[in-house]
Amino acid sequence: MMSNPFLSGDPGIRPRRPMMALVLANTMLSTVPGISGAGPTPEATLLTPVLDAELVTTGAITSVPARPNTPTGCPTPAAITRSMVELTGLVPIHINAGLAHSPTVPCLDVYGSPGGDPREGDAVPQATRLFERGEMAGRLLSQQSDLLMLGECVPGGTTTALCVLRALGYEASVSSAFARNPLDLKGAICREVLARIDEIGAEEPLDILRAAGDPMIPVAAGIASTYSGDLILAGGTQMLAVAAVLKALGRRVPPLATTVYIRDDPTAGFARSIAGIGTTAYYVDPDFAGIGHAGLARYCTGEVKEGTGAGGALMLARLMGYEPEDIARKVFDFVMRYD
Amino acid sequence: MMSNPFLSGDPGIRPRRPMMALVLANTMLSTVPGISGAGPTPEATLLTPVLDAELVTTGAITSVPARPNTPTGCPTPAAITRSMVELTGLVPIHINAGLAHSPTVPCLDVYGSPGGDPREGDAVPQATRLFERGEMAGRLLSQQSDLLMLGECVPGGTTTALCVLRALGYEASVSSAFARNPLDLKGAICREVLARIDEIGAEEPLDILRAAGDPMIPVAAGIASTYSGDLILAGGTQMLAVAAVLKALGRRVPPLATTVYIRDDPTAGFARSIAGIGTTAYYVDPDFAGIGHAGLARYCTGEVKEGTGAGGALMLARLMGYEPEDIARKVFDFVMRYD
Repeated sequence: MMSNPFLSGDPGIRPRRPMMALVLANTMLSTVPGISGAGPTPEATLLTPVLDAELVTTGAITSVPARPNTPTGCPTPAAITRSMVELTGLVPIHINAGLAHSPTVPCLDVYGSPGGDPREGDAVPQATRLFERGEMAGRLLSQQSDLLMLGECVPGGTTTALCVLRALGYEASVSSAFARNPLDLKGAICREVLARIDEIGAEEPLDILRAAGDPMIPVAAGIASTYSGDLILAGGTQMLAVAAVLKALGRRVPPLATTVYIRDDPTAGFARSIAGIGTTAYYVDPDFAGIGHAGLARYCTGEVKEGTGAGGALMLARLMGYEPEDIARKVFDFVMRYD
Repeated sequence: MMSNPFLSGDPGIRPRRPMMALVLANTMLSTVPGISGAGPTPEATLLTPVLDAELVTTGAITSVPARPNTPTGCPTPAAITRSMVELTGLVPIHINAGLAHSPTVPCLDVYGSPGGDPREGDAVPQATRLFERGEMAGRLLSQQSDLLMLGECVPGGTTTALCVLRALGYEASVSSAFARNPLDLKGAICREVLARIDEIGAEEPLDILRAAGDPMIPVAAGIASTYSGDLILAGGTQMLAVAAVLKALGRRVPPLATTVYIRDDPTAGFARSIAGIGTTAYYVDPDFAGIGHAGLARYCTGEVKEGTGAGGALMLARLMGYEPEDIARKVFDFVMRYD
């Protein structure tokens, strides 16, 4: 059998001044038991973006006693993103779209608030303002780079993404960091939220985000609207929601970059959604099955899969000229520190 | 009589990827009546950095009914900085070191707090942490630029700068935005603060900042410590304090860029302080007397003088290749909008 290529296609981008940015946000949905695997307890998922930013920026989590492994012992996607920082020397800029806890590293802040539970009321009352602040941030980032790999970290964000995609008319399903995707729970929440969207009559994309999104989606969409260079949305189903919003707004719809573990998740129907939105996706195959690390191998059997721009960070390293074997070795070396 | 040159000297820098950053902070000293001219009332000075950032980023102040003129009718330094944004197309990145009000534009935030009144207790309890966050920010900004023009906006900041400079052993005086510098008031506050510094035995630079500084100083010093390209401190006596802290820490001491109105302020003794710290300064002479605008002309007779990196913004435009006459015309055109 031929092995898969490291990258499913060549975007033809050879960046001179690449930049990576990660949009951080919270949604109160992550505190609903069973929704998010991105933390040791539902309440603790609120801290995850802050710890991810700390790991990606400094190489270690020192503000609290925590290791960059999931509750089930897999290396977190942020660890993969950090390993690429150490390979390429390029540190992502973190964008605070609305967090429950104060970051421990500098972030480009748009002064939002954490997203609420969309079953209880408007989840992102400031959605329009956040979109505009994202547009401002996109102009700023345009000045200093010619390629922006734009990722996210939003625990519980696949559920808000599901609500937004369905409200925009897509028959989407979504992925999950759990090996067994809690589709029943997500589906039940989504039905309740869609009923509320119907009730209040939200139809415009920013009205849908206000009702049912999380702060990351309008900020990322705003950035993508004004960024002047090449832009790639780094992520799975959450970035699908950003792409769908951009399409509904009549803006440029960028391609996505994610791992083959997202593409191959039978519950998510990712490739079908990509086609439905009319964009393209680049899939990175870091061959975690063959890398010699049990926790990474479990990505291949359906755990974690993606997050914190990990797929995009791997792709960016490749676009910057690093060889697949060097990329794999760096991931392995980094995660072994926390084994 | 020969007219002065636009720039007092040539630093020999021809930036390919220039960047300008403005560190914003508050000190509660600006609410002491008579200390700061940077706002219509002492309490309103707390909002000035937010409004300056809004003007510099968007070209207008829309979040509150306010015009970019001082209470006495001079164009604010932020208006000059903005005019250079429109000339060069380069928008500064704002850095939130600790503000009382939430910014209306995206800022790189280090998650500090406004500085307290140093007569009443430690003014910046988190000084060491802010210095470290500044170091992180300096590394981030290094990735995307080869020249950093680093300015500030801190109402009341000349008084904290005076305290810090004197505590570090300099016989400094400071400048003021008022035509008549309230030296008696500043001197009285400073004596009180120095007595407290003696009492608690603060001698190390970061201990002095904790006791008597404002959040801008440790953040700017941290950035200057790690920034890898050419760095110029854009400002007057407040940036002197940053330079003095860097010298005391044994770090690289960058040159300063400011207006001739700061150099020529007889109460400030600026050139003497520059020599005392052992650095150099570039002085910009935008010939505001000859530009044909009464409010700008008053800069020459001792009002406003500098702020929000205005001198540095003018110098940066020159380094980017713009001619003095085009720079002057742009300043004039911009301030005429608000006449």
